[in-house]
Amino acid sequence: MILTVTLNAALDVTYEVAELVPGGTHRASAVHERAGGKGVNVARVLTALGRDRVLATGLAGGPAGAEITRELAAAGIPARFAPIAGDSRRTVTIVASGDATVFNEPGPVVTDGEWHGFRERFRALCGEAEVAVLSGSLPPGVPRDAYAQLTTDARARGVRVLLDADGEALRLGLAARPDVAKPNAAELARVAGPGPVAEAARSLLANGPGAVVVSRGADGLLAVTSAGTWSVRPPRPLSGNPTGAGDAVAAALARALRGTAPLDRAAPVDWPAVLADAAALSAAAVLAPVAGDVDLAAYRTFLQEISCHSPRQPR
Amino acid sequence: MILTVTLNAALDVTYEVAELVPGGTHRASAVHERAGGKGVNVARVLTALGRDRVLATGLAGGPAGAEITRELAAAGIPARFAPIAGDSRRTVTIVASGDATVFNEPGPVVTDGEWHGFRERFRALCGEAEVAVLSGSLPPGVPRDAYAQLTTDARARGVRVLLDADGEALRLGLAARPDVAKPNAAELARVAGPGPVAEAARSLLANGPGAVVVSRGADGLLAVTSAGTWSVRPPRPLSGNPTGAGDAVAAALARALRGTAPLDRAAPVDWPAVLADAAALSAAAVLAPVAGDVDLAAYRTFLQEISCHSPRQPR
Repeated sequence: MILTVTLNAALDVTYEVAELVPGGTHRASAVHERAGGKGVNVARVLTALGRDRVLATGLAGGPAGAEITRELAAAGIPARFAPIAGDSRRTVTIVASGDATVFNEPGPVVTDGEWHGFRERFRALCGEAEVAVLSGSLPPGVPRDAYAQLTTDARARGVRVLLDADGEALRLGLAARPDVAKPNAAELARVAGPGPVAEAARSLLANGPGAVVVSRGADGLLAVTSAGTWSVRPPRPLSGNPTGAGDAVAAALARALRGTAPLDRAAPVDWPAVLADAAALSAAAVLAPVAGDVDLAAYRTFLQEISCHSPRQPR
Repeated sequence: MILTVTLNAALDVTYEVAELVPGGTHRASAVHERAGGKGVNVARVLTALGRDRVLATGLAGGPAGAEITRELAAAGIPARFAPIAGDSRRTVTIVASGDATVFNEPGPVVTDGEWHGFRERFRALCGEAEVAVLSGSLPPGVPRDAYAQLTTDARARGVRVLLDADGEALRLGLAARPDVAKPNAAELARVAGPGPVAEAARSLLANGPGAVVVSRGADGLLAVTSAGTWSVRPPRPLSGNPTGAGDAVAAALARALRGTAPLDRAAPVDWPAVLADAAALSAAAVLAPVAGDVDLAAYRTFLQEISCHSPRQPR
């Protein structure tokens, strides 16, 4: 089972308007609501792929939290969120003539007791999981080293860990040695400092993760491990909604960690194949209009097209 | 008692952001949620004034509906909303450097049964009311002549009616002869056609309301009855949040209809005094940052300052 953790789950609300006029009053022609947050998106992609048992967990509370769990159930995404007293956040996205403008609430305040309760739940769920995906921002009140704590808990139970975070949460989480860290280029620069991406990624390996996979938008993906560096470019220039593309990469990497695709678990990681798979799934997410969705037909096409550049570089 | 009706009640959500950048991602530094909709705002103003017993009614459903009734209770505003199966709408206002950008959801779909149930409730509440304020948009499914039906119900029970609506809902409602209609200039033009405001307002009187009060923003208020025309200008040039200024006017007019202020009920309406009161309360609403709030100290100051131009015009 792949367990996805979303500590700052969101109810993602999308309004379609004809045109966004700052200072104006707009009538939304359509309103969409769905559960979101990076880990939820990963679970949604994995559910769409339909090959792995998946469970979404995290923290959810208040009216938005109730809507989050209701929508997950309606969408057929297995979920067991821990209730909290605070209100889960909403995000509001205004879509106007193809352009998306996003407003994020900061999230609920989580108490110490709620955090400890969640950690107990996470440890129990680790008994059923092979891979844990730790994704996204931390709500106020959750300790800054939350991902380090969860990584330690998971590794102690033989569960492989993918970490997709930013800033302090990422920096502290890396020290607990997740199997893979997946920052984007900006997140990498924030923890490793400026400089060439490959060097920055390699600098994280010393006391940290087994591999660093950097998602670089139109520049594709880069994987760095102690054994070498691999990169892959997107199958073709794409226009669409890049929100959720990184979550599709995380979904592909979680499957690779579990051994579902593209190789079985016992074998060493075939990074060229893993990156090609992740890039194809990411591109298929860009083509889908809503974060968390993937265009499965496009995914299969891209898998055929993609070429992986894998100069096995000596360190 | 003053009964305010809000058929399309809203949960008004406000996000404060540093700057609104179309196409950008914004983190809200503050999130405010409160019950809204024009009738709710009127009830809030009347509650703040503290002189009249007030009750807010209308339709509310779903998670937003639950938050609306919870917030009203917390704010001490007496409310008895009829539950509906649909989700009450939210409005999202982005406040950035003093500028407000508003997004309105269309509202829930109301069933025939829910509408008839509400009408029963309204008739029962009329037994306790002296004035009914019918304000704002109609949600999908509510008959277009809803305000005409409610006006007829109220008048049959000796309850005086203030109608504050737009478009078809206003046009059909006027025919049921509410005591006062309060369009703004744009709403007036939509039902009466283009032309000078006083003439347009007078054209509505023939088969319609007892009085038409037009709110004209910086140009002040204009009242037209069969006895004459009165106008008043704002106490001074104001900058602030004009949302809710019209609801403050409605609150003042409802008090006048009830006879609370500025004169007792038995006397004929002293329009100069009523308009001065409404203009002062409206200006005090502009100074308050959130729709439904009024600056009570400013209201008292403005009442002293305001000069009412009351050329009692022959028709």
